[in-house]
Amino acid sequence: MTIQDAGAARPAGRPRSEKAEKAILEATLDLIGEGMGISELSIEAIAARAGVGKTTIYRRWSNKEDLVVDALATLKAPVPPLAGESVRDDLVTLLDQMRDESGHVRTKCVMNIALSESDRYPHLFEKFRKIAIEPRRAAMRQVLERGMASGELRSTLEIELAMAILTGTMVWFTKWGDTSDRGPELAEGIVDQVLAGIAP
Amino acid sequence: MTIQDAGAARPAGRPRSEKAEKAILEATLDLIGEGMGISELSIEAIAARAGVGKTTIYRRWSNKEDLVVDALATLKAPVPPLAGESVRDDLVTLLDQMRDESGHVRTKCVMNIALSESDRYPHLFEKFRKIAIEPRRAAMRQVLERGMASGELRSTLEIELAMAILTGTMVWFTKWGDTSDRGPELAEGIVDQVLAGIAP
Repeated sequence: MTIQDAGAARPAGRPRSEKAEKAILEATLDLIGEGMGISELSIEAIAARAGVGKTTIYRRWSNKEDLVVDALATLKAPVPPLAGESVRDDLVTLLDQMRDESGHVRTKCVMNIALSESDRYPHLFEKFRKIAIEPRRAAMRQVLERGMASGELRSTLEIELAMAILTGTMVWFTKWGDTSDRGPELAEGIVDQVLAGIAP
Repeated sequence: MTIQDAGAARPAGRPRSEKAEKAILEATLDLIGEGMGISELSIEAIAARAGVGKTTIYRRWSNKEDLVVDALATLKAPVPPLAGESVRDDLVTLLDQMRDESGHVRTKCVMNIALSESDRYPHLFEKFRKIAIEPRRAAMRQVLERGMASGELRSTLEIELAMAILTGTMVWFTKWGDTSDRGPELAEGIVDQVLAGIAP
């Protein structure tokens, strides 16, 4: 049972239950945020941190993976609004949100899980991809298609490759570069360099 | 004590000891290759897998992190030889090695650790960076500098940004794209697109 199902099935106005749910999700994020991997995470530890019994958790989630997906999904901000005037500016907006989010400790842990545990928990990662990653990829794909139609981008562009270049570069910076004292100029620098190319 | 120190301190020709060392490094890689995170990895488990006593391990490595660094370092192939004729071709060679290595299960696990556990084990990651990552970065930096000097690349290029674009894109593909049935044409596609830019 996922949290959405639970919400749909439950009669309106049971604040104690909602409070418990929130505490469980928060406890899960706390533990992940402290660096705990999914395999180390236990329903026992989550229950203890949330101050609820294990049965309270099992009433809502049939397994740990579903709980982790729901907890991770609460962290992802919606796709940012795009001005839709310049392809360059919209790409900067999309990339700058990635940089901005990477500054939060919890988002860092989500990234770590997405990066490292996807082989080990393919089911979990698949759900997370659908809920949290695909909407952003769809937004970027749309911007690139618009640019190809408008002439702002090469009409022969390989969209998947362009998306990998833009996203991969920002992921690289958020993981191994120092983004702590960098503002939106990082996203601008990446987009402009990728637009212009490194050849003369 | 690292394995290098041990090697230097030990009189020549103690095959039993060398065999034990190799078994310990292999056992460490086996366990990591099976998806075990560094925090889950224990000297006990490594000793059991290697068929040696814990003291045999502690005689060579004073702690788990040093042992893991030495084990990971054995996996990294040396920087590939570069023809030095065309900047484009040398960049393809460097990126294609990344793709090629990513196909090995053990290297995947190393990547996962480098990606996810660097916040948790900064000391380990720092050593690994020095031994295994920096030599490759230095090679790529040299190729880019050569290109700026020869006119194959823009003379105003921001080298760190160009390196992040090239490396980040290939890392993205090895993690989230499907590289299993792709050959060197992936590296070629990335390099050509980054050289030319996505604008018309």
